[in-house]
Amino acid sequence: MTSGLTRRDFVATTVGTTVALGAATQAPPPLAASRELAPIYDEIERRHDETVARLQEWIRQPSIAAEDLGMREGAELTKKLALDAGFQHAEIIPTKGAPGVFATLDAGARQTLGLYFMYDVKQVDAAEWSSPPWEGRLVEKEGLGTILVGRAATNQKGPQAALLAALHAIRAAGRKPPVNLVLVAEGEEEIGSPNFGQVVHDTPQVRRALERSIGIFMPSHSQDRDGTVTIRLGSKGDIECELVASGERWGRGPTRDVHSSLAARLDQPAWHLVQALDTLVTPAGEPAIDGFFEHVRPVTKEEHAMLDILARRTDEKSTLESVGAKVWARNASWRQALEDYVSRPTLTIEGLVGGYTGPGGKTVQPHRMTAKLDMRLVPDMTPEDIMAKLAAHLAKRGFGDIEIVKNGGFNYVSSTPATSKLVLAQRRVYQQFGIDAMLLPRSGGSWPGSLFTAAPLSLPAGHFGLGYGERAHAPDEFCLIDSRNKNLHGMNDMVRSCVDYLFALA
Amino acid sequence: MTSGLTRRDFVATTVGTTVALGAATQAPPPLAASRELAPIYDEIERRHDETVARLQEWIRQPSIAAEDLGMREGAELTKKLALDAGFQHAEIIPTKGAPGVFATLDAGARQTLGLYFMYDVKQVDAAEWSSPPWEGRLVEKEGLGTILVGRAATNQKGPQAALLAALHAIRAAGRKPPVNLVLVAEGEEEIGSPNFGQVVHDTPQVRRALERSIGIFMPSHSQDRDGTVTIRLGSKGDIECELVASGERWGRGPTRDVHSSLAARLDQPAWHLVQALDTLVTPAGEPAIDGFFEHVRPVTKEEHAMLDILARRTDEKSTLESVGAKVWARNASWRQALEDYVSRPTLTIEGLVGGYTGPGGKTVQPHRMTAKLDMRLVPDMTPEDIMAKLAAHLAKRGFGDIEIVKNGGFNYVSSTPATSKLVLAQRRVYQQFGIDAMLLPRSGGSWPGSLFTAAPLSLPAGHFGLGYGERAHAPDEFCLIDSRNKNLHGMNDMVRSCVDYLFALA
Repeated sequence: MTSGLTRRDFVATTVGTTVALGAATQAPPPLAASRELAPIYDEIERRHDETVARLQEWIRQPSIAAEDLGMREGAELTKKLALDAGFQHAEIIPTKGAPGVFATLDAGARQTLGLYFMYDVKQVDAAEWSSPPWEGRLVEKEGLGTILVGRAATNQKGPQAALLAALHAIRAAGRKPPVNLVLVAEGEEEIGSPNFGQVVHDTPQVRRALERSIGIFMPSHSQDRDGTVTIRLGSKGDIECELVASGERWGRGPTRDVHSSLAARLDQPAWHLVQALDTLVTPAGEPAIDGFFEHVRPVTKEEHAMLDILARRTDEKSTLESVGAKVWARNASWRQALEDYVSRPTLTIEGLVGGYTGPGGKTVQPHRMTAKLDMRLVPDMTPEDIMAKLAAHLAKRGFGDIEIVKNGGFNYVSSTPATSKLVLAQRRVYQQFGIDAMLLPRSGGSWPGSLFTAAPLSLPAGHFGLGYGERAHAPDEFCLIDSRNKNLHGMNDMVRSCVDYLFALA
Repeated sequence: MTSGLTRRDFVATTVGTTVALGAATQAPPPLAASRELAPIYDEIERRHDETVARLQEWIRQPSIAAEDLGMREGAELTKKLALDAGFQHAEIIPTKGAPGVFATLDAGARQTLGLYFMYDVKQVDAAEWSSPPWEGRLVEKEGLGTILVGRAATNQKGPQAALLAALHAIRAAGRKPPVNLVLVAEGEEEIGSPNFGQVVHDTPQVRRALERSIGIFMPSHSQDRDGTVTIRLGSKGDIECELVASGERWGRGPTRDVHSSLAARLDQPAWHLVQALDTLVTPAGEPAIDGFFEHVRPVTKEEHAMLDILARRTDEKSTLESVGAKVWARNASWRQALEDYVSRPTLTIEGLVGGYTGPGGKTVQPHRMTAKLDMRLVPDMTPEDIMAKLAAHLAKRGFGDIEIVKNGGFNYVSSTPATSKLVLAQRRVYQQFGIDAMLLPRSGGSWPGSLFTAAPLSLPAGHFGLGYGERAHAPDEFCLIDSRNKNLHGMNDMVRSCVDYLFALA
């Protein structure tokens, strides 16, 4: 049902207008042309095939947290790749789930920078792929150039391999990295990072190393199809949970599935759930959980400025088309729809499931019915507060028997200032490539950013990297290796952008 | 989810009290002891193994309408079995779906009786069976005796094989059946008999033959586990349909599944469906479709008398336990719960399905959500009227975009008078075996009875037969062959009850 979904949850298409930026969104001055990096750039070109081969090697090792497949091997390979790239120290960090990896590269530099990697990948159904998902085959693609097809090509081994290639190129050119590096990698990103806090908060040597860092970033293919880049200054918090109505908990209706004719004399847990769900939204479909909006912080002046720019420079029509929609919720304007995306908390039904779910009908009365919910939180909401409010709301209305089960994400809002060095340096690097990056106050998608941005670490955190990929989580995931599209950068430029970024931060 | 469900939707357990019956429920006088049938009974005993072998042969031919598997072969075998049993004429009747079978046995008798067979069976998952589902293995079972395990052992080849064995025994004893017979068999009972009307109404020779009949019955294992028999004087009507909310039809929200973060700016078809569903029931979970109860006929005096007897002679506690419930809907008494079962129309959620339905969560916003509904109708409701009322109800409340899709049963109420010859003869035969059969005004389960009881045929119709089976539709379906349980009758008595019934009707 959900194939084709990607991590790229924010879809924006430039209309080609360059607009003056205001306030905190003022464009920073460009970097001085860095002649001194030319030998490194030469090494990037020379080592192109080696870089691709390294990515293919990584792709050939599937590590699927959801299936507990190849986790140990994935961690070991990540450790090896770090050591190969010049990290002097690398170790496996055990957790209650899949292990993490911690590595440090002491370049004798003044500044220390954090790197966040994931070595796990989404599941595959190989039958749906046009080439084997664990091969990383190079293929020509109309309108793009040479692409590499494989699971994790863009999410996230492709961009991570580019960062490693940058370190190889720097060393090959006889240079040292301009910053010290602290790498933390996890193997459970695709299942909501349930144990990554154990790696970054609870492991003393990791926490100490991160505390010394100026910030942390995850290498990413940040270009959209038209070449634009939007820097996300954080992400919403999120909660995934199930509401489960059952005869057992309710004390009414059957406690096993029975023939539907018996509904004449048995209460129905399914209707009980429908009635409970109905209380959670207004007639317009907005969240109606008691107190849901209590702590919502108004949109700031800076955020308004960023949204004004996004509204002018991005295309409403193609964004509507990308989801097959005719109108935005509340018949909002494009500017308002952008603001809603970053500032409205949500309550979403991910799925309903229970009773007979196959083709046609089946005369059964189910004893149990489940709604899978997803909530997206904005500053200053917290998952704990909202979970408590949901439970109180249901109990107050006679639905206290309905079970609330956490089943996925449970993340705090993550925020990084537009004025942080991490963000300013990103914008300067993109500018060198002729890209005037836009700023998005926060993404609605989730990543474990709050583990870095919230206490105890309180670090700037984000994503960075040129380049382009598609179909994360879907069949035929790919990344662009050699671009023949004037708007899009291939692997070598992605590696070069990593080099530039490290030097810009130094 | 629904394994263990059986066609035996009415569960009742005698408490052992024999009660005087009132009004139309007055017990008829017993049959004169029929010495003249002794040679036939002898043939039944002698042919026991042949009868079992014939049932096994039938079971070895799977015919699964839902999978379009073995339908032609099933029809041909049914035709052959009829000819073997003495029908002079048998033919396949094509339909838009699986073919029917029509056969006649002219015994030169005064009366003609209809027989309704089904040759299709439910699907199997052989891995869930303790012996192969298509074998019909004889197995010893504690507390029962020798049972035959196989798909259709009780639903419905076992009882039908007993009727055929009765004809073989009558012929072997040098007698003719005491009534002429008209057999109609279908191959789509398990998918709601969508084309059986073409066989019994639209095929001139079949319709003429049925019009000459005094009534029609389906052989059945009619005993409950405690040996009691409850004769159902008809069945509720039923409708199965889906309500489907989608971005496409609504014109709001996405038209494909998208990332759940986008719910901040996209309407949700899932909430639209929940809100529509909520209008269909009262806060107590009762149907609230406008006009739903308009044509409901009050319970008659006769029906009240039958329910009084059922309430006295059946056990509430074990019936509650059989569905794992603590209380009846509306906290009804047992007497009221019985009345509700026969007289309340229902609106049931068979299942909810849409979006992500697997384990855990998945951050998706579905563009489509489905509720599978089942409605049970009582006199004088009709499926057409209720479907129209459902559509009008939704449209009036702003849910006119929600699609209503028929997906299963669509049957009229079926009714046969307690005073019909068919029913009176049944009760006399059961009495000969010491069983004071109870009368149930109607079952909540569906069978295509209204094709016989409603115009144009307007025939009495029902089920008949001693004997016992379990696990229809479930793994390890079985019927009792040689009983060592004092309350339950095995195959030979089932065959004998068929012989007695034919002679009682003559």
